[in-house]
Amino acid sequence: MAEDSKQKIMDATYCALCEHGYADLSIQKIADEFDKGKSLIYYHYDDKEDLMLSFLDYMQNHMESTHEEIMDLSPEERLDAFLDKALGLEEKERWEFQKAFLELRAQAAHNEKFKEKFGQMDRQILENLEEILSGIGIENRDISEIVLSSVEGAASRKVSIGDREGLQEMKGTIKDTVENLSN
Amino acid sequence: MAEDSKQKIMDATYCALCEHGYADLSIQKIADEFDKGKSLIYYHYDDKEDLMLSFLDYMQNHMESTHEEIMDLSPEERLDAFLDKALGLEEKERWEFQKAFLELRAQAAHNEKFKEKFGQMDRQILENLEEILSGIGIENRDISEIVLSSVEGAASRKVSIGDREGLQEMKGTIKDTVENLSN
Repeated sequence: MAEDSKQKIMDATYCALCEHGYADLSIQKIADEFDKGKSLIYYHYDDKEDLMLSFLDYMQNHMESTHEEIMDLSPEERLDAFLDKALGLEEKERWEFQKAFLELRAQAAHNEKFKEKFGQMDRQILENLEEILSGIGIENRDISEIVLSSVEGAASRKVSIGDREGLQEMKGTIKDTVENLSN
Repeated sequence: MAEDSKQKIMDATYCALCEHGYADLSIQKIADEFDKGKSLIYYHYDDKEDLMLSFLDYMQNHMESTHEEIMDLSPEERLDAFLDKALGLEEKERWEFQKAFLELRAQAAHNEKFKEKFGQMDRQILENLEEILSGIGIENRDISEIVLSSVEGAASRKVSIGDREGLQEMKGTIKDTVENLSN
């Protein structure tokens, strides 16, 4: 598929997920985000599931380029940047996307193909986090597992109840915890 | 409503959630769990949302009686029992229910009434956990927030990818972390 078509469809999917969530998402709603959307989407994808699997791949690639950017920072700045990205604290739109991400994750429990993708993403983000923590002298798989679970759980708890400020506070709590655990 | 009717409907809702998940749940599927189900349910509830709100109340009450049982244990045994319950590790059926719970939580992000209930439950379970940790000399809100987020995140990560063994391992990791943080 031509790269610009794919980019257009992925951007539209992201916007439609932010706007409508996953349960209410349809190819039509994604297609509404751009000109000649529906024919372009159906030219490349069979159905909503097929498109979402491609979107999860796209997210995974995005996560990798974000990780590369983070690794260009100094070792001391990396955890902070990781938490901003993983908790979705940088911008308002990301908060909307977090809601849709909760739905996608819940969907994974009932869908083998989603499950596999989420498994890959989970392993990859855990490795990325280990690399980040290793830069500040923490070489401990258990600490990485706890930090990643805290991030996922904090996002899940606070996003589901609409407490954006609480999520911001959790960032500080997670950073303090990493410091306490590394001593 | 007569207590035994309510109990019957709540049990049926629990079973139907375990079996079908939330997205595919219908009043009909809940009604199929017992005799004369549909008329009994529609006598008491307007629709699926109304019934689910009542089910969330029921869960909250159940959480409270579980907490009382846990508080009857010795202070040293309580965290272990809390983790078994909160991670859903005691029985196979609870694993199925955890999947549906992920969906309910994701739903909360898009539904004000669910959001309010989940907010109440989150505050309550945090208080319960603080009481449990206080029994072993930990009086620190941040540690409770991290433990609860780790529990929610570990369940969410492992349930969504179908890794029951990984969730069992996370229980040990969370216990070790509490010990490290309390020193």
